Amino acid sequence: MSDTPTLSSALLDKAVDEFSKLPGIGRKTALRLVLHLLKLEPSAVDTFAQSLTNLCHDVHYCHQCHNISDTDLCAICSNPLRDGTQVCVVENFQDVMALEATTQYHGLYHVLGGVISPMDGISPSDLEIESLVERVHQGGVEEVILALSSTMEGDTTNFYIYRRLQDVHDLKITTLARGISINDELQYTDEVTLGRSLVNRVPFSF
Amino acid sequence: MSDTPTLSSALLDKAVDEFSKLPGIGRKTALRLVLHLLKLEPSAVDTFAQSLTNLCHDVHYCHQCHNISDTDLCAICSNPLRDGTQVCVVENFQDVMALEATTQYHGLYHVLGGVISPMDGISPSDLEIESLVERVHQGGVEEVILALSSTMEGDTTNFYIYRRLQDVHDLKITTLARGISINDELQYTDEVTLGRSLVNRVPFSF
Repeated sequence: MSDTPTLSSALLDKAVDEFSKLPGIGRKTALRLVLHLLKLEPSAVDTFAQSLTNLCHDVHYCHQCHNISDTDLCAICSNPLRDGTQVCVVENFQDVMALEATTQYHGLYHVLGGVISPMDGISPSDLEIESLVERVHQGGVEEVILALSSTMEGDTTNFYIYRRLQDVHDLKITTLARGISINDELQYTDEVTLGRSLVNRVPFSF
Repeated sequence: MSDTPTLSSALLDKAVDEFSKLPGIGRKTALRLVLHLLKLEPSAVDTFAQSLTNLCHDVHYCHQCHNISDTDLCAICSNPLRDGTQVCVVENFQDVMALEATTQYHGLYHVLGGVISPMDGISPSDLEIESLVERVHQGGVEEVILALSSTMEGDTTNFYIYRRLQDVHDLKITTLARGISINDELQYTDEVTLGRSLVNRVPFSF
């Protein structure tokens, strides 16, 4: 029995094809989704299709922080209550969402769009690093918080940005604390994390 | 931390909303799919959206067997090599695909669009039963094969169709053989299936 039986309708086949191009969606799931859409009112499917078209044609990226936005300057950058002296450098849009969900950060962001990765052909010029350097040189920024993943690529990117910014007068460059996760047990923590959390120990507070 | 953080773009939010209406797709998966689409060329997304719109507006149902089709008469019904004297009654389009995948059936189909289910408010008039009775009365059909699920609802529908067709002269009404699945072990088979496969035993052949 074939996993990809020929469908009786070329239209159906085309829709299933398109759905199965999405990450994590195989042909069986695609068929289930398409048959669900077939049962809906055509107007509901039009709304669905329209929302995708609108997204791809009308979405903006904030010209200051390069986050996804509906406007030229995003809601975070244009919020006068946010602290413009702090800029948190992240890899992508999801990282902004994760940090915003903590409600602990009140500064601005800078979305790089990835990390330096020679293996994947991503060089500094493919990322929003130049615009970050310019932004810092324009003044007003007192602290740059590097919040990239602690992978080889993330560390390389951190170091590259550090080198580009180290000569800026009175600029504090910080990075996220690494240590044992809240609720994690000591005995199951890997030695690198445990070692680093010992070296970077902080005064006890309650 | 909320499972549904506010997104920085209403367009993005709308697209994620629409995706998460699909069965089995939550907001996190929806966001992942939408961010994937955002990375594509706008023309690729247009093709995706267009395929859905086309599907819902232009899809036909075969006027004879009610299967999904691009034409008024589907590829199976219009194929002169198929045996028009046999009509296999199935619940939906996926059942046609499953039977076609066996390559053991060369007759035609009749897609009911569901089974009788008073609990879900589905009565015989909501299904393509009247058209099946008409089709049989028009002549040319020698055997109706009932291939519905062996659930309470399936059995009810089988019985209803049987009652509607039992008076047709020279019509054979059959149903799929129920028994132990190929490769299944006797000791793990449920007693109803085992009992029925004993009653309906067939001559040994090899």
